[in-house]
Amino acid sequence: MKRTITALVNNQSGVLNRITGLFARRNFNIESITVGITENPSISRMTFVVVVDSERNIEQVLKQLNKQVDVLKVKDITDEPIVARELALVKISVTPAQRSELAALVNPFRASIIDVGRENMTIQVTGEHDKVEALIDLVRPYGIQEIARTGITAFKRGTKKSIIDANRITLIN
Amino acid sequence: MKRTITALVNNQSGVLNRITGLFARRNFNIESITVGITENPSISRMTFVVVVDSERNIEQVLKQLNKQVDVLKVKDITDEPIVARELALVKISVTPAQRSELAALVNPFRASIIDVGRENMTIQVTGEHDKVEALIDLVRPYGIQEIARTGITAFKRGTKKSIIDANRITLIN
Repeated sequence: MKRTITALVNNQSGVLNRITGLFARRNFNIESITVGITENPSISRMTFVVVVDSERNIEQVLKQLNKQVDVLKVKDITDEPIVARELALVKISVTPAQRSELAALVNPFRASIIDVGRENMTIQVTGEHDKVEALIDLVRPYGIQEIARTGITAFKRGTKKSIIDANRITLIN
Repeated sequence: MKRTITALVNNQSGVLNRITGLFARRNFNIESITVGITENPSISRMTFVVVVDSERNIEQVLKQLNKQVDVLKVKDITDEPIVARELALVKISVTPAQRSELAALVNPFRASIIDVGRENMTIQVTGEHDKVEALIDLVRPYGIQEIARTGITAFKRGTKKSIIDANRITLIN
C-alpha cells in the first residue's frame, strides 16, 4: 500500500537523516521523496511516497515523526483532496529522421523538448504520476537512454470542491 | 558552495538513510533532494544539491558513497554540461477580480493554473532553479499561502554542444 506523506521541517543538516532512519528501521521503502524550501527559507517541505504493509504501521511512524525536534508538522495526505505533480526528464534515442515523429508523439502531453543531441532528444514532462508513466511507456520503443524523475510534490487543494477539475486540466496542460 | 550530485542506487529500504547519514556526519546540509525510479524499477536515481565548505570535502564524501553496497554510481555534475529542472506548486491568495491579472503574469513563464479556489489559485511552474525563483518573487506581493517544490533533477546533456540552447528554450517553454 502506498501512502503520500508531507512534512514541514527545519532546514538543517541531519533532519532528513533522522526521518529516513525512522522509515528504515521499520523496513518501509521510500519510493520517492522530494525536498524543497518553502516561502520561509528556514523551513523545508518534504513529500514522501512510502510503501507500507498496513495503515496502522504508518500511523505509528507519523506519531514518532511528530515527536522529532526539527519536525514541525507531518501529515498523511493520501486520502485528502490534493494536487500532486511530478517532473520527469527522459533522454530518448532518435535518429534525425525520427525527430519530428517523436515531437508529434509528446505534443499532446504538453511535454517540452529541452535538448537535442545528434542521436537523442531530451523531453521534460510534468503532471500526475500516471500521466508521466503513460508518456514513458509510449516512448519506450524508441529506446530510453536515461530517466531522471523528481518524485511527486503535493499539497491540499484550495477548496474541497474546486472550480476546475485538476485531472482534466492535467490532460490539457 | 553548492554542488549538484547524482547517484544511481538499488531501490531498497535503508539506502537513502545510509546516504543522508554520510552527509549529516559532516554537517553538510542537503538543500534539495529528489529520488525517483529509473527505466529499471529496481534502480533509483537521486539528485542532491548539497551546501559544502570546500571542494576537497565533497570529494571525500563521494569516495565514501561509492564504497556503499547499494550505491552503483555517484557523480558530482556541477561543472558538467547538464539539463537540470525543478517543479514548484504555488498556492497564491487572489480575489476573484485578480484572477485574470495573475493569469497574465504567469503566462510568459508557461506556468499552468492547476487549481482555483474561492480565494486562491494554485500554479505549477517548471524550469531551471532561477526561473522558478523569479516567478515566486513576482507572485509574492499577492500573498503566498503554500509552496511545494520538488528540488532539481538532472542529468548530462546528450551532446556537449547541443543544437538547442536549453537556457533559451526554458524561457520559451
